[in-house]
Amino acid sequence: MTTSMPPLSITSPSNPLIKRLRGLDRKRNRTETGLFLAEGTRLVLQGLNNGWQADTLVCASSMLERPLVQDLVSRAMADQTKTIQVPDRVMGQITRKDNPGAVVAAFRQQHRTLADLATTNSGIWLALYEIRDPGNLGTILRTADCTGLAGVILLETCCDPYSIEAVRASMGSVFDIAFATSDFPAFNAWRKDQGLTMTAASVNGTIRHDEASYSGKALIIMGNEQAGLPPDIEATCDTLALIPMRGGADSLNLAQATAIMSYEAWRQQGYAGARGATG
Amino acid sequence: MTTSMPPLSITSPSNPLIKRLRGLDRKRNRTETGLFLAEGTRLVLQGLNNGWQADTLVCASSMLERPLVQDLVSRAMADQTKTIQVPDRVMGQITRKDNPGAVVAAFRQQHRTLADLATTNSGIWLALYEIRDPGNLGTILRTADCTGLAGVILLETCCDPYSIEAVRASMGSVFDIAFATSDFPAFNAWRKDQGLTMTAASVNGTIRHDEASYSGKALIIMGNEQAGLPPDIEATCDTLALIPMRGGADSLNLAQATAIMSYEAWRQQGYAGARGATG
Repeated sequence: MTTSMPPLSITSPSNPLIKRLRGLDRKRNRTETGLFLAEGTRLVLQGLNNGWQADTLVCASSMLERPLVQDLVSRAMADQTKTIQVPDRVMGQITRKDNPGAVVAAFRQQHRTLADLATTNSGIWLALYEIRDPGNLGTILRTADCTGLAGVILLETCCDPYSIEAVRASMGSVFDIAFATSDFPAFNAWRKDQGLTMTAASVNGTIRHDEASYSGKALIIMGNEQAGLPPDIEATCDTLALIPMRGGADSLNLAQATAIMSYEAWRQQGYAGARGATG
Repeated sequence: MTTSMPPLSITSPSNPLIKRLRGLDRKRNRTETGLFLAEGTRLVLQGLNNGWQADTLVCASSMLERPLVQDLVSRAMADQTKTIQVPDRVMGQITRKDNPGAVVAAFRQQHRTLADLATTNSGIWLALYEIRDPGNLGTILRTADCTGLAGVILLETCCDPYSIEAVRASMGSVFDIAFATSDFPAFNAWRKDQGLTMTAASVNGTIRHDEASYSGKALIIMGNEQAGLPPDIEATCDTLALIPMRGGADSLNLAQATAIMSYEAWRQQGYAGARGATG
């Protein structure tokens, strides 16, 4: 497939559209515009295929002839998405990478509240309390997607799932997994309404993480990278679970701990929804 | 504890020692000097406590009065370690961080071969084949340390465990966990000599990861982030294990997959060596 008309070429980094795109590395600008960046043909395609709306598609002029890029350009133009081509140098400035990919797109953010989350009869939910590292958040969304979690709730002040680091680490799962934001009291009322048991991974855990039960409708809650969960939140949990750790070792990375909790809960639910050979 | 003499003050970023330290962000310079950087009082202390030799200790002049920094300075001076103080700006240049910590130290690298690894009668080993992301490597070393793995073997051309990203992500486990480098043939002969069964996590897995057996002396092997393991290496494995994945999801991050494998193997070995409550 070829496009009848090549995308508008912009070469100046001081062009207002380029400046707006470059500015999306800052939270304030993402909030003001409601946009965020996703880089690479695979990610952009995943966003479009999942029904996310692209505001602007930017292609590297040097890679415009690639079939995948051509397809994206045709599709973007058909969707009335602003479509431009830029030199590699400008592409690098937008994505802040030395070796930028062929395309980057600015997508419209989606904001969900607890009311927007689908209620389910079973399945595992994940709540993240005040987590701060966007790489951790993106990695956790990716793992949540792999384990087919029902959804993720970001509690109180978490880092931005639409930051370029989080989107990159999510490897496209930001387009796939349902996530919502909430304060803790509203969340706790919601999870009780939903009949979700709440298990925290905690250094104060009194039962080993794989001896806790995650049957039926279960929710795992993980705390901040440094501080964990506050005592009053731990007090509202049904179970405090301890992930075993070698004597002398410090602590697991938050995303690693979340993966261990998620896979244990999913194991107990018979890996429902898994693909391929299962032994 | 106070030092009788304050550390030599260097303020110019073009001072040869400062330039040498700044250069340690490059693999070539780390190889030439045999040094690597570890930032922060906690990490530096962990290195010293584990018997690693510091070549140079750098302190931020603005934080020289802190008791922990004073202790490190006294200790470094007693060890004949070069000890200097620099302005925050120079500290930021050495560590390439906007908010650098109070100290950074250049430590001597340690290089182990298979022959240097302690042989054990049981326990879990981990081999990493051509992994490329230093953040993944550091995170994996941290998790290997938490699960008390017997050791880690870096096969063929892996990223550098002494890069600043790997050291940072390891949170000090680089000083704690035994790791060696090897080519694949020598490694494979060694693991057979040791009587280690070899299980790969693979998309070609024929048995679920938690239905594979990791009893006695077991080794887990993980492949490259993009390509996984080459077919001829998979063919030498005793077991190819599949980590379940939701239909439609892409793949797990390598460090996440390694954590899931390590914890399953450790679970089967009764969490030997774990601290605290175990349910």
